[in-house]
Amino acid sequence: MVIRPYDIIETKEAVLADNDAVAEKTRQFLSSNHTFLINLMSSPGSGKTTTLLRTIDALKDRYRIGVMEADVDSDVDASAVAAKGVKVIQLHTGGSCHMDASMTKEGLDGLGLKDLDLVFLENVGNLVCPAEFDVGANLRVMILSVPEGDDKPLKYPLMFTVSDLMLINKIDVAPVFDFDYEACAERARKLNPNIDIIKMSSLTGEGFDEWIAWLTDKVDSWRDSYADH
Amino acid sequence: MVIRPYDIIETKEAVLADNDAVAEKTRQFLSSNHTFLINLMSSPGSGKTTTLLRTIDALKDRYRIGVMEADVDSDVDASAVAAKGVKVIQLHTGGSCHMDASMTKEGLDGLGLKDLDLVFLENVGNLVCPAEFDVGANLRVMILSVPEGDDKPLKYPLMFTVSDLMLINKIDVAPVFDFDYEACAERARKLNPNIDIIKMSSLTGEGFDEWIAWLTDKVDSWRDSYADH
Repeated sequence: MVIRPYDIIETKEAVLADNDAVAEKTRQFLSSNHTFLINLMSSPGSGKTTTLLRTIDALKDRYRIGVMEADVDSDVDASAVAAKGVKVIQLHTGGSCHMDASMTKEGLDGLGLKDLDLVFLENVGNLVCPAEFDVGANLRVMILSVPEGDDKPLKYPLMFTVSDLMLINKIDVAPVFDFDYEACAERARKLNPNIDIIKMSSLTGEGFDEWIAWLTDKVDSWRDSYADH
Repeated sequence: MVIRPYDIIETKEAVLADNDAVAEKTRQFLSSNHTFLINLMSSPGSGKTTTLLRTIDALKDRYRIGVMEADVDSDVDASAVAAKGVKVIQLHTGGSCHMDASMTKEGLDGLGLKDLDLVFLENVGNLVCPAEFDVGANLRVMILSVPEGDDKPLKYPLMFTVSDLMLINKIDVAPVFDFDYEACAERARKLNPNIDIIKMSSLTGEGFDEWIAWLTDKVDSWRDSYADH
């Protein structure tokens, strides 16, 4: 028997029609618990886990953090997160290429929101399907890494349309790639004029402070709105 | 009105249960036309299009080549392929994150197999869903690029299980990434002992001859088997 510092849940997909209703209920449930949920999305290998680990280091004294790691298979990311000493749960999507609202609610119930201020859902690595599902999060953050190329908003438009923030990651390797930040930003803003864009490297930490400032501003504003009531 | 050197087809997804039967019929249809079909798959930004363009340059005097570009949206890749002077068709998947056998057959009919020896399907950039669908191709080739990381077989196992060849692309940037070729190969072979693995860079051309040799060997063997009859 393998003893793991986290549970594994085999999630089940719900009917698409119910998704938005479940997502809305989840947001109310999160509000009543004063827990803020972030849906973190990207292609495979864009740096979701590395970004998450560095974000935990930066914020674990400020917020009580929980993590849901969604994967088709494996639990390598959950192990890495557990090593940071935060509450983590592994979600297996049973072959599904995305998380939907029901699967996310199941994950939140498994994780338990008691004493958690901030929860990250690390979605399945996929630039297509996760964009189609409101999981009930307060914010959608997507990562595009420099090696993937600046044309991605043209080819996977929905992800850029629905995200609140695009983190352009791996800027440390920009010198060996032909990536046009301005062209990329322009393509993303054409789809979504409200999208925020931050360039950073979760490996070297360059630009990381700006992401942390953006995130704490969003979370604290939301928390303040509760304190007022 | 925009005049394009290629058609655009809005494909429709079929019921999953029928998929394998349609795929098998497509393979027979391809055989009767003496046309060899390759299903090219990878994450977004792994270099499918760059690999394809360089492959066309290497093989266009040897085979009569056709290309089906599958995308959720846009036709930037079809434009690039059309500029090479080969027959190309753009397939829009209508939000679908993969090509299935029916959509592929629809694409082949739109492309027209007359006078084509070799057809490439550039699948939607996605390491999850395209692996689940036999589209009727003779070979499945997947690309994993160095920046994505050597742990991808652990997290997206099906893609590595079903592919005949893994092309490890972007080896020109290996010096700035921490990518363990041996560990990656071992993880892939554990899932699929028969998978072939070739390291290359579709940008610099390093290792590209090996891929071209692998491919021509497969295509010519298949063609020889017809010549015998």
